[in-house]
Amino acid sequence: MPNPRLAPIGVFDSGIGGLTVAAALRRELPAESILYIGDTARVPYGGKSQPTIQRYALEIGAYLAAQGAKCLVVACNTASALALEALRTRLPIPVLGVVEPGARAAVETAGQKPIAVLGTRSTIASGAYERAIHCLQPQANILSIACPLLVPLIEEGLFDDPLMDMALARYLAPLREFQPKAIVLGCTHYPLAAAAISRAAPPQAVLVDSAHHCALATRQLLQSHDLLAPDSLQGHLEAAFTDPAENFLRIAAEALKLPVEKPKMVKIPSLFISEK
Amino acid sequence: MPNPRLAPIGVFDSGIGGLTVAAALRRELPAESILYIGDTARVPYGGKSQPTIQRYALEIGAYLAAQGAKCLVVACNTASALALEALRTRLPIPVLGVVEPGARAAVETAGQKPIAVLGTRSTIASGAYERAIHCLQPQANILSIACPLLVPLIEEGLFDDPLMDMALARYLAPLREFQPKAIVLGCTHYPLAAAAISRAAPPQAVLVDSAHHCALATRQLLQSHDLLAPDSLQGHLEAAFTDPAENFLRIAAEALKLPVEKPKMVKIPSLFISEK
Repeated sequence: MPNPRLAPIGVFDSGIGGLTVAAALRRELPAESILYIGDTARVPYGGKSQPTIQRYALEIGAYLAAQGAKCLVVACNTASALALEALRTRLPIPVLGVVEPGARAAVETAGQKPIAVLGTRSTIASGAYERAIHCLQPQANILSIACPLLVPLIEEGLFDDPLMDMALARYLAPLREFQPKAIVLGCTHYPLAAAAISRAAPPQAVLVDSAHHCALATRQLLQSHDLLAPDSLQGHLEAAFTDPAENFLRIAAEALKLPVEKPKMVKIPSLFISEK
Repeated sequence: MPNPRLAPIGVFDSGIGGLTVAAALRRELPAESILYIGDTARVPYGGKSQPTIQRYALEIGAYLAAQGAKCLVVACNTASALALEALRTRLPIPVLGVVEPGARAAVETAGQKPIAVLGTRSTIASGAYERAIHCLQPQANILSIACPLLVPLIEEGLFDDPLMDMALARYLAPLREFQPKAIVLGCTHYPLAAAAISRAAPPQAVLVDSAHHCALATRQLLQSHDLLAPDSLQGHLEAAFTDPAENFLRIAAEALKLPVEKPKMVKIPSLFISEK
């Protein structure tokens, strides 16, 4: 049986946004190899329902486990918010999402001050961030805002564009009165638009990106399961996508400046999950 | 064996846009029943690759044929542009797309004058409209413009909104010089934004919506196969979606004012199609 410490970390997202998490993992855990899947054939997840998002997450999680991943990092806020328990119940490997690390980062940044959460329609509707933040800080004052156009704008490469500014001016208008200390970027796409979000946000607000905290939490998870790769190893990032949409890959390469071995295409076997 | 003339017409789209075609079919062919599938679990198709779009189209086409549909109307320009030949080769029922009827409508409207085509990234990249228009009018002067943000804006219900106006001002800027006589709405979502598109277009340009011409072509197809329903029948529209995203259904109901029997959810079996 191969040494499980040498196995890769499985990471998935609905598209390219999770590469921000993959980049943080590469920085924090350079000995670890990463097997990344972007579900570009079914992107976006953010407006879809919980049963559909759970099915997609279980299909990809089962695939990565079958490929030998030693743990699964769900680098997609929507899937973390709606499918984490289903993944933990059904998969044979440890599973980590981005919501809990993001909530921890927000509370560390904001202390007792107000916290805003930006996310997709499904992430915000799930209430997952509120629950995670209230676990850490029961008195926290939280305002959650669904920003459904940000993912399409980012996927078009319009990180820093008048259309992005107009959409953000509308979404973030309630923050002028709310005056948050921390703004959680509750979607792994959003760090790519951080400059525009900062311009639109009240000046004292600090943007909180869960990617770095997710990498720290991954290290803890691997330590607790005795799964850390030996420091002598040199990890690498292998990325695969379910659809070869060139637009995504070009934007990923340009925006993230992330050395990815030549991306592969994969087919994810469908699960037929019995409905409750 | 049941009388095939009594069977429904199968119609599919990536989401709600194809309901504009279903509405035209109900108006032109009131005796026909329609079985509509919106692939909301995998919407949008417009930025995805041909192999993925062909796989989705074949899965849904095979499902509708198995449900007893007497013909298939592909009410999605992206799938019509990229998957029509695959569907015609693989399905046991006649198949009609929206591109050829849209091209016919454009040539009827424009005569010898310039024709603009608006569509998704994949539709425009396929060149399907240029080919169909040049078949009818070999000298036609055509300008094709990919408008990838229109579908997300429409799916957010922002038909008539400053964000829509700003996106259109950018996409349609080349039309000031091109001065088209006809502008083909080469995506079944776009008729929902017709007012904003008219505002952004040069004043002499006429918007061409393929839905009406697609309904006329469907009548011809059914006649030629002796599949028209008897005039005495009263047809109805049954709609099913692959994801129950409430946002889509609310927008569909509000924008299209289309009486749909209570929408169902369906699971589309996956095909594992051998790659070339």
